[in-house]
Amino acid sequence: LDTITISTEPKKAKPVAVIGAGKFGMAVANLLAKNSKVLLYTRSPEICDEINTKNHCRGIDLDKNIQGSTDLEIIASRCTIIFPIIPSNQFIELMKNIGPLLKPSHIVIHGIKGLLLNPKPIDQTESPFKLRQVHTISDVIKKYSLVERVGCLSGPNLASEILEGQPTATVLASEFDEVIKAGVQLLSCNTFYVFGSNDLIGAELAGALKNIVAMASGVLQGLGLGKNIQGVMITRGLREMILIGRLMGSKMEAFIGTAGIGDLIATATSEKSRNFRFGVQIAKGKNKDQILKELNATVEGLNTLEVVKKIVDAHKLHAPISKALFSVVYEGLHPLRALDNIMKYPHGNDVDYMD
Amino acid sequence: LDTITISTEPKKAKPVAVIGAGKFGMAVANLLAKNSKVLLYTRSPEICDEINTKNHCRGIDLDKNIQGSTDLEIIASRCTIIFPIIPSNQFIELMKNIGPLLKPSHIVIHGIKGLLLNPKPIDQTESPFKLRQVHTISDVIKKYSLVERVGCLSGPNLASEILEGQPTATVLASEFDEVIKAGVQLLSCNTFYVFGSNDLIGAELAGALKNIVAMASGVLQGLGLGKNIQGVMITRGLREMILIGRLMGSKMEAFIGTAGIGDLIATATSEKSRNFRFGVQIAKGKNKDQILKELNATVEGLNTLEVVKKIVDAHKLHAPISKALFSVVYEGLHPLRALDNIMKYPHGNDVDYMD
Repeated sequence: LDTITISTEPKKAKPVAVIGAGKFGMAVANLLAKNSKVLLYTRSPEICDEINTKNHCRGIDLDKNIQGSTDLEIIASRCTIIFPIIPSNQFIELMKNIGPLLKPSHIVIHGIKGLLLNPKPIDQTESPFKLRQVHTISDVIKKYSLVERVGCLSGPNLASEILEGQPTATVLASEFDEVIKAGVQLLSCNTFYVFGSNDLIGAELAGALKNIVAMASGVLQGLGLGKNIQGVMITRGLREMILIGRLMGSKMEAFIGTAGIGDLIATATSEKSRNFRFGVQIAKGKNKDQILKELNATVEGLNTLEVVKKIVDAHKLHAPISKALFSVVYEGLHPLRALDNIMKYPHGNDVDYMD
Repeated sequence: LDTITISTEPKKAKPVAVIGAGKFGMAVANLLAKNSKVLLYTRSPEICDEINTKNHCRGIDLDKNIQGSTDLEIIASRCTIIFPIIPSNQFIELMKNIGPLLKPSHIVIHGIKGLLLNPKPIDQTESPFKLRQVHTISDVIKKYSLVERVGCLSGPNLASEILEGQPTATVLASEFDEVIKAGVQLLSCNTFYVFGSNDLIGAELAGALKNIVAMASGVLQGLGLGKNIQGVMITRGLREMILIGRLMGSKMEAFIGTAGIGDLIATATSEKSRNFRFGVQIAKGKNKDQILKELNATVEGLNTLEVVKKIVDAHKLHAPISKALFSVVYEGLHPLRALDNIMKYPHGNDVDYMD
């Protein structure tokens, strides 16, 4: 991974696929389209039509190298490299459909920031909770297909800024160097720097867990508080991310790099993050369902928060922020009371998670 | 350091001292005043008068437990614990005056975010540069006095927010547990959490070096760029802080905790930081002297940047952000050009500084 070479070959005939025409899906499609033909999958025939006739989609301009498709069979047969970028709660359904079409030769690099619990029928749910019930997105890909070469994108990648052509970096993580190499060549450009990493679960967990911190940071903002306590909370939230990450087998590096701190700064200090905005509204006294109705969109952090609460309780982790946020969102604890409890707790050492 | 007990004893007769009636000095004085009598030193008889007659100072309300003084002899003789909080470029002069008055029984806990080069007469300057020429504030305290029990405050402590009573945390670092214990008891309250640490140089370096990242982050903001690249730059800037810190003998923990990441988030994502605002103005095409004239205040990061440039060059550290910022501020490199250079550089691994 020491040097990265960017492909200067002419565009290849074989397209790569992006599954999901949400904002981040389109942002990734536009990046890929600088180096390759792209098939952009959407379930909606109307959106597909819009992509193919107007080269834009819901107000966003798409590169001419992008073609829409509503057919997973075409995606699986024409593309070797596939980037699924959809809400995590729709992912098992997608894998049930596309999984049987995928071969061991496929490479799947996802950009989904969530964790799943029990990705199997509800009547097979295990109780009490066991850590093995927690599945990352790459676990689900491997469970529902023959694909082994899996990767993920994780980093400070607010879609709106990428779509504006603003510069940023990301981490492309995979256990397979060939996946990293392929992804780096496809995605790199002057405004998008791609770091490779072999810590797949670290990158996935960093991306998913940071949404909890983004929600908590939004709560502080909603309470009218400033940058000092935001800095403290993000630092202490990072600590909880690292505790959970280590429990699940990832290294600390994943959390203190671009996919960890980098993404935390982009999403947990910014109104542009939906998770952050959710937190702001919670602090203003609205309840979860009301906010979700108004946002009319998935708030990934909520599902992750439920999973994390189970992990924290079962393993007795010292994770006061995750626990307090859960109580605020699901049990009606007043956020000021939660903050007061955390401030008064004897936290011991500042950095207590190093070896 | 596992448990922290907050003193419930009645106010003691012996006051503690704060040297410097700037905003952060006043913020610390107000915190201390909840647990102790405080002597607040200022050079200005007018400000001292204002403190003693009106209990406020330049628009800021001060606790009734605070008394002004312009006399370093009174400070040194009446107080055992002294908190110097003044600009770093005035610190040697202060130590020349108060140093001879201090005894080994004094405890000095500073809140100064700077590094000094060659704290001796200019005709003794060594050339070429050697790392031993770099002095932290605690080095200077020990050099100019008999005090051994030295500590420092470092963390996300924007003074304006502390003065408003907003909650935050800080790190109080000292090689001496008795210094930490005394400081924690004096400063802790419901809105101010104090973590103890034995890594004094780590806390000092984190506080000083983060100002470089804050300036660079301001440059990005001044260029009109968003949260993604801010997240990347702060993460990569943290990496440079850790490289320099390790070279100078501190541990990584200091940088990934409250005094590192915590303070970075507070100062490098916020207009409230003078260093950040300096960077914004640089990006808008103003030159250093013009901005300093308009700000009419010390920008600590500038001095630190000069010191860091010498360290980076002499030790051939891979520190593209510090080097680029130096070129932008002192050599007229256009910030967009600097950013472009950094984006195109083959950075290798995301986290390359772990053992």
